[in-house]
Amino acid sequence: MGIDTGEIMDVALFGGGRIGKIHAGNVARQPGVSLRYVVDVDAGAAAALASAHGARVATADAAFADKGVGAVVIASSTDTHADLIVRAAAAGKAIFCEKPVDLAVERARTCAAAVAKAGVTCLIGFQRRYDPTFSALKERLVAGEIGDPEMLVVTSRDPGAPPVDYIRRSGGIFKDMLIHDFDIFRWILDDEAATVYATGSCITDPAIAAAGDIDATAVTIRTKRGRLAQINTIRRAAYGYDQRFEVLGSKGMLQAGNHRPTEVAAWTGECVCADKPEHFFLERYRAAYAREMAHFFAALASGEPVRTSIDDGVKALALAEAATTSWRENRVVEIG
Amino acid sequence: MGIDTGEIMDVALFGGGRIGKIHAGNVARQPGVSLRYVVDVDAGAAAALASAHGARVATADAAFADKGVGAVVIASSTDTHADLIVRAAAAGKAIFCEKPVDLAVERARTCAAAVAKAGVTCLIGFQRRYDPTFSALKERLVAGEIGDPEMLVVTSRDPGAPPVDYIRRSGGIFKDMLIHDFDIFRWILDDEAATVYATGSCITDPAIAAAGDIDATAVTIRTKRGRLAQINTIRRAAYGYDQRFEVLGSKGMLQAGNHRPTEVAAWTGECVCADKPEHFFLERYRAAYAREMAHFFAALASGEPVRTSIDDGVKALALAEAATTSWRENRVVEIG
Amino acid sequence: MGIDTGEIMDVALFGGGRIGKIHAGNVARQPGVSLRYVVDVDAGAAAALASAHGARVATADAAFADKGVGAVVIASSTDTHADLIVRAAAAGKAIFCEKPVDLAVERARTCAAAVAKAGVTCLIGFQRRYDPTFSALKERLVAGEIGDPEMLVVTSRDPGAPPVDYIRRSGGIFKDMLIHDFDIFRWILDDEAATVYATGSCITDPAIAAAGDIDATAVTIRTKRGRLAQINTIRRAAYGYDQRFEVLGSKGMLQAGNHRPTEVAAWTGECVCADKPEHFFLERYRAAYAREMAHFFAALASGEPVRTSIDDGVKALALAEAATTSWRENRVVEIG
Amino acid sequence: MGIDTGEIMDVALFGGGRIGKIHAGNVARQPGVSLRYVVDVDAGAAAALASAHGARVATADAAFADKGVGAVVIASSTDTHADLIVRAAAAGKAIFCEKPVDLAVERARTCAAAVAKAGVTCLIGFQRRYDPTFSALKERLVAGEIGDPEMLVVTSRDPGAPPVDYIRRSGGIFKDMLIHDFDIFRWILDDEAATVYATGSCITDPAIAAAGDIDATAVTIRTKRGRLAQINTIRRAAYGYDQRFEVLGSKGMLQAGNHRPTEVAAWTGECVCADKPEHFFLERYRAAYAREMAHFFAALASGEPVRTSIDDGVKALALAEAATTSWRENRVVEIG
Repeated sequence: MGIDTGEIMDVALFGGGRIGKIHAGNVARQPGVSLRYVVDVDAGAAAALASAHGARVATADAAFADKGVGAVVIASSTDTHADLIVRAAAAGKAIFCEKPVDLAVERARTCAAAVAKAGVTCLIGFQRRYDPTFSALKERLVAGEIGDPEMLVVTSRDPGAPPVDYIRRSGGIFKDMLIHDFDIFRWILDDEAATVYATGSCITDPAIAAAGDIDATAVTIRTKRGRLAQINTIRRAAYGYDQRFEVLGSKGMLQAGNHRPTEVAAWTGECVCADKPEHFFLERYRAAYAREMAHFFAALASGEPVRTSIDDGVKALALAEAATTSWRENRVVEIG
Repeated sequence: MGIDTGEIMDVALFGGGRIGKIHAGNVARQPGVSLRYVVDVDAGAAAALASAHGARVATADAAFADKGVGAVVIASSTDTHADLIVRAAAAGKAIFCEKPVDLAVERARTCAAAVAKAGVTCLIGFQRRYDPTFSALKERLVAGEIGDPEMLVVTSRDPGAPPVDYIRRSGGIFKDMLIHDFDIFRWILDDEAATVYATGSCITDPAIAAAGDIDATAVTIRTKRGRLAQINTIRRAAYGYDQRFEVLGSKGMLQAGNHRPTEVAAWTGECVCADKPEHFFLERYRAAYAREMAHFFAALASGEPVRTSIDDGVKALALAEAATTSWRENRVVEIG
Repeated sequence: MGIDTGEIMDVALFGGGRIGKIHAGNVARQPGVSLRYVVDVDAGAAAALASAHGARVATADAAFADKGVGAVVIASSTDTHADLIVRAAAAGKAIFCEKPVDLAVERARTCAAAVAKAGVTCLIGFQRRYDPTFSALKERLVAGEIGDPEMLVVTSRDPGAPPVDYIRRSGGIFKDMLIHDFDIFRWILDDEAATVYATGSCITDPAIAAAGDIDATAVTIRTKRGRLAQINTIRRAAYGYDQRFEVLGSKGMLQAGNHRPTEVAAWTGECVCADKPEHFFLERYRAAYAREMAHFFAALASGEPVRTSIDDGVKALALAEAATTSWRENRVVEIG
Repeated sequence: MGIDTGEIMDVALFGGGRIGKIHAGNVARQPGVSLRYVVDVDAGAAAALASAHGARVATADAAFADKGVGAVVIASSTDTHADLIVRAAAAGKAIFCEKPVDLAVERARTCAAAVAKAGVTCLIGFQRRYDPTFSALKERLVAGEIGDPEMLVVTSRDPGAPPVDYIRRSGGIFKDMLIHDFDIFRWILDDEAATVYATGSCITDPAIAAAGDIDATAVTIRTKRGRLAQINTIRRAAYGYDQRFEVLGSKGMLQAGNHRPTEVAAWTGECVCADKPEHFFLERYRAAYAREMAHFFAALASGEPVRTSIDDGVKALALAEAATTSWRENRVVEIG
């Protein structure tokens, strides 16, 4: 099915919320791919999204039962991911699933085993790897432009915290927010953690502390090969969404900077002003989401492995778990 | 017809070349709009493009005769523009036409008169006005951020010259290349030229001089209100496509910088390196082309005037003609 | 005398004003050089400056008569330059003279002839050539980094206009302000003007127009080898002192940017802000003035020619005169 | 004595090496201050430096015994600092001492006690606080421009490692190199460490590991008020000397960037290139060293406390010791 055969691949989408809409639009843009079903507990959201793309509302059972559905896109709430992955794998469908696989590492491993056993393709939505700036940096790194990577510094800041209600169910900042940064760490250094140390504070809103979480973190990872990584995050940066990292190598440094809405600069009596970074992840990673979906279907067509596998999902989650332990117990955590 | 009424507006596209393809894609993305015909002397190009968008190949006569066609997009060669505009106006169709209206100012004025008489909408494709950076700058200027505009400096450079054969039929560098810059000048300063001085050289390729043209120019305009503008252009900048301008006002300066493919920076033993500008106009103005087409159909739906009218097309052409005279006769040209 | 011989070279300084103080400090820093006299019609200024550097107040006659004075630094008002140059040359003294040589081209040529006849060293204070940024750019240009130079764009803006009284005696904006830019043009392109076109306006203060001058100019020069240069200037840029130029070559472009007081950037809810340029010429060219003076004495010690000769002074002045004519008569001026 | 009284303050300099020369030059530039003695075990170095500044070579005993010496500048090797501080304090002389006070925290505390008891002024050479960029950032932070500081990220990298012989006697990277960064941390956040975690690797040269040290570190500090700081350092960055930090506050972020030798940018077929940072600390902190010395004598004249006291020296050293322990024992260290 798909591009090569001339057949159309039909897709079922789980979750019609903000990120579901992005994925629906990107599915619609793939040649040889058609969005057939939208599944959502919110019937109105499902209907609206289905209608916008000429798809139908369906139950999960119906979507899985339809042999014509070749792939599923899982963009529903985190607590549904694992179950949907297992069911999709059992049904032999290719899987595109938003991060995280699950909040529990063991359960994520179970999902990975199910996927492996079924032999289906499963892409976990670490969209940052598909960002034009980040992926260009990675290519240049792999090409040897700065020699061997030695240090990584990641700055990852949101423009504002989500509602405390969300935070309470999020698994904590390390699993909810830093999981992306842990994936960047593994991808850029092409190495695994030997030790993790995490500390943090609740700086922006006491309600977050009351919910048992923090909103600012400082994480240090030492890799098995002795490389060093530092990650700093906060839920609220007054100037917006800050997504930068820099990797030092034996021959130089590669920096990934923020994207700006425009290239206007204002020179005034006070200063020379450039635009703030793009507003938030939907703007910053718009191209990344599009490329991620194109990659998924290209991988299905070619039979090549996806660049962000369920194993990547499990490993980033394990790092998030280790960081959570490190923070809670105020100690260095060794990774087996 | 169109968005408001729920009816579909059908469109005929003239010209299936490089820019025609861009416009076809953008037409296809407009809600409530459908590409019905592609007209091109190259039957193969027409067929391929029509097929890609579910449209049909047609002759110009058939396209104009079809009452169901509400709008035409003219992206064919420059020498066909005037005739197609006049015919489209006579047929009562809304017109989207690539620049220039024509190479002869008088004929362009005739077209403008035909459009005015027919009362149809006519947008001339000065896409730069729709660029995110340029339009944001204009909005901030209009909002008074830097007070009254006083000086404008435009740098407009191509990565490489077109074939000499193209140059020979282009009307010369002022009508072919600088017409965009003359439009930027009028738009940004919201003023008209009082005097024009242009000089130039053939620097990059003697064949261009042999064709009676130059490849590098320096133009100075003094406006009716005493503002000053300088434009520098060249057909070949070794580092690529350079599209910058800066406007000085009584309270500060606004600069429009180049767009880069990525925000990667490399720090090496030699220097700190950022990306070159985006490759050429198709990359640099991709968003501008999309917004331009959306504006065209939004204007049709709302009945509001388009932002780049055929009068803008005539006036930019008149400036190009004055600049050509100034260069040829090595003198300052007064604009009536 | 001087560095090589172990003798001390004594210097007489004419003019104890703002720029005279700068030069006095720089003279004092040269090894083997001593400031012996300060000459100024303002006795108090002369005494204060002399006292600060262990020098004495003297009349011009006394300074020229003292055989022990090997060099003079002329930093007095423009109308005194020519006479002091001629007298210094006659007295066999090396000359460091602020720009311009004179406001009249013929008189400047007479000075140059006197200098040539006397065989003395004469440096004209085009300090920009000694600026770290500008001189590094020139070195890289000469080294061939961007191939043959083709176009030059100069932006040269002051933070505010001088008193109208000063403007009235200044010789006009082209001789007073742009003379530096004309020198930059000749130095960077290593070429001479074939045609000059200048236009301008009085934008910032009607009193300047009443004084017969303008405060904003746009100049275009085409060189004998067909290169193009554009210069834009204004007496008042709200954001400060703007000293940039960029030279396009066959293989790339070299830009000289402004210097900033600090490298602090502020990221706020509004924008990302860097420092404005350094305040004015005393700040921006502090290093240049120091290097210029060091070059003067190094040239005296080595016997090598100075990098900014009186001929450079005459030629920049001739360009300023041509630009003045072009502006006044609104025509292109051919340079013989 | 000094500026206010019209008397000359005489100074004795200990250490005629690289940094001693810098300080000698800066002492010489202070009005009302005279370098009387240079003390160095290397007689030749002492004689050369003394001669260059019209000073005399002396023994430490002679320098301390001279009642006319009001201040000492200690720029000799680290192992001599403590003894010289104690002797200078006992002799009632004002003290300017290069960092660190000593390699042993206890001994540094003894020095601080001696200074306190003697009531003499003692400035420790944390020159970075006097850097134009860093001090401007601090002023803007104190002025409230970004609200309360919350996070600090410091990047501090040298262009190359010193000889292993030096490293062996250096006290380790935390006391030798990061002591500056620990001082920056205390100064910028105006807070004290609650916990310190440090890890590191030997990346650039196995000989450094053989000497019992590391050449790359990642340090995390959580302050008593819950703020977070991360410091990354390396002995060798291929692109040179990298001295940046950024402080996030509740209302925005302030960044301190590197200084560049020039503001030339090259646009080529490959990229847009700016200068690398200034070469190393002597270039980068040239202005800082000058301002530091001026501050020392201004503080002596005014009687106000110095901005980098011996207590700052002790506290930065204690942090370096805690970091060393954290790294060696691979654990989080609590600060009392």
